[in-house]
Amino acid sequence: MSLSISEISQPVASHLEEFNVFFKVLIRSKAALLDIVLRYILKQRGKRVRPTLVFLSAAICGQITRRTYIAASLVELLHTATLVHDDVVDEADKRRGVPSINAVWKNKVAVLVGDYLLAKGLLIAVEHEEFDYLRITSTSVRRMSEGELLQIQKSRQKTLDEETYFKIISDKTASLISTCCEIGAVSTTDNSEYRKAMKDYGELVGIAFQIQDDILDYMSRSSIVGKPIGNDIREKKITLPLIYACQNAEKSKGKAIIKTLKSGKLSNQSIEEIIEFVIMNNGIIQAQEKANSIIFEAKNKIAFFPDSPAKISLLKFAEYVINRTK
Amino acid sequence: MSLSISEISQPVASHLEEFNVFFKVLIRSKAALLDIVLRYILKQRGKRVRPTLVFLSAAICGQITRRTYIAASLVELLHTATLVHDDVVDEADKRRGVPSINAVWKNKVAVLVGDYLLAKGLLIAVEHEEFDYLRITSTSVRRMSEGELLQIQKSRQKTLDEETYFKIISDKTASLISTCCEIGAVSTTDNSEYRKAMKDYGELVGIAFQIQDDILDYMSRSSIVGKPIGNDIREKKITLPLIYACQNAEKSKGKAIIKTLKSGKLSNQSIEEIIEFVIMNNGIIQAQEKANSIIFEAKNKIAFFPDSPAKISLLKFAEYVINRTK
Repeated sequence: MSLSISEISQPVASHLEEFNVFFKVLIRSKAALLDIVLRYILKQRGKRVRPTLVFLSAAICGQITRRTYIAASLVELLHTATLVHDDVVDEADKRRGVPSINAVWKNKVAVLVGDYLLAKGLLIAVEHEEFDYLRITSTSVRRMSEGELLQIQKSRQKTLDEETYFKIISDKTASLISTCCEIGAVSTTDNSEYRKAMKDYGELVGIAFQIQDDILDYMSRSSIVGKPIGNDIREKKITLPLIYACQNAEKSKGKAIIKTLKSGKLSNQSIEEIIEFVIMNNGIIQAQEKANSIIFEAKNKIAFFPDSPAKISLLKFAEYVINRTK
Repeated sequence: MSLSISEISQPVASHLEEFNVFFKVLIRSKAALLDIVLRYILKQRGKRVRPTLVFLSAAICGQITRRTYIAASLVELLHTATLVHDDVVDEADKRRGVPSINAVWKNKVAVLVGDYLLAKGLLIAVEHEEFDYLRITSTSVRRMSEGELLQIQKSRQKTLDEETYFKIISDKTASLISTCCEIGAVSTTDNSEYRKAMKDYGELVGIAFQIQDDILDYMSRSSIVGKPIGNDIREKKITLPLIYACQNAEKSKGKAIIKTLKSGKLSNQSIEEIIEFVIMNNGIIQAQEKANSIIFEAKNKIAFFPDSPAKISLLKFAEYVINRTK
């Protein structure tokens, strides 16, 4: 099976095209420097995964309306704001293959543009009196920062249990994906069963998305994903494959590997050693099984919806998340 | 006349004390690292100027209620978030005499804690269905980032006209002070004349506040303000005293001074030269006159309110803003 975002977004393709124009007009500013930065951001736009989810979630629940466009703008603004801030905190020089905002205009401009995008998103919701959107998205912002901070806190410790891992990735990654699906539903229906189903679907898909990311860090080759293998290992992060491998291995061997991981700058040989440990102790395969069962659950959440092209796409998206290689 | 914030806050002192407890409980988090950072922030709390303005603005318009406490929390969260982000963008090591968040926990934690505080503020407004607060505060966040970005943009140019200067400081500084006063009024009255008067008062006082800041940069001595003189000059900022001095001086002399200001790293001698130019050409005295006339206007905006301790304090606050030496 070959899956791609462009194939998945097919049922809402015309809306996405219209959205691109809508969004471009929306985020323009009269302030010259700001406008230049915003246009730079627009030029480097990604695959628009989040607006796609908003539109598909609206379409599975009812009719796409102008309110859906507002919802999609809100999550795209929020997502863009977090990317701009992420590049500052990670001191990243590149984003989507071109220089990051902080690399071109320095940290000061990047932090301010991020804040501007956050405020702009909230203002749009306020202006349109979309108070459900506000509640959903500000919860999401809070969860994202809490998740990141919990991860930083735990990274200083020598262990990470499965429960904490899932708490971190739910808050850090799944919250925004869940928000996309919930807000899409809210844009078109009052049916609380529909809204809850989409929220749950998004949360589960988001969790599986992050597990797959963590798996790819152990498996991918530079040429495939455009980023070097073992990034998380270099940053001394304990993720699900390693957690499972430690559970499966002899206790002393697990301890030794964690000690290696947490000790100073890692040589390429140490990284290879850790990867081998994880593979040999079924860390990757078990993480894949876990992601599979979560995706199974996610698909179940939306099974009761009547058949539609949007439903098929959302089922495909669930598969895409765990089958992607980058 | 001796003025101080503690004297000005007298009529609402008991509310401010209660607010400190209210706020402390409000911003606690179950996430350990986050909670440690939040408690660190609480310990270093400043003079609570912004909550004081919220309470006084409510008291001049009517009764202080629980809604006023929510309003005060919202602006304090917003203000704290911007301070934490400011220290990141300015690479500041200290805040209120102790190490800044970014100095203790690195940029990553600081940006995330700032985002968390923003989200937390918005969530509180959403939970209490305070949609007027949301509109007012998100406009304020947008204006603050736009103002800062306009300032950065203009700092690359060799001129700054008076009009642009006022646009920058209105957005950058006055918007949040205006928000404090407006939101305080909104917390207790529907009277649109009252709300407008407090909003305008805050905007004018905020503008004068920034003019005074810019004047102090030319006048203050390190021992008084706890920061070295000529910081703005070192950062090559053109502020009101210099704008006026250039208007008053021979054109060629003004041009020469701006050329000095904008050329590479400034020697102490060059800085002294610029300060002398500004003083000799009445830049400071004219900026003071301007601030005085703005404060006169601000006081006029609230003159129609019936006499009350809160009104006296707000009139005093207006005076304080242009008479403070730090």
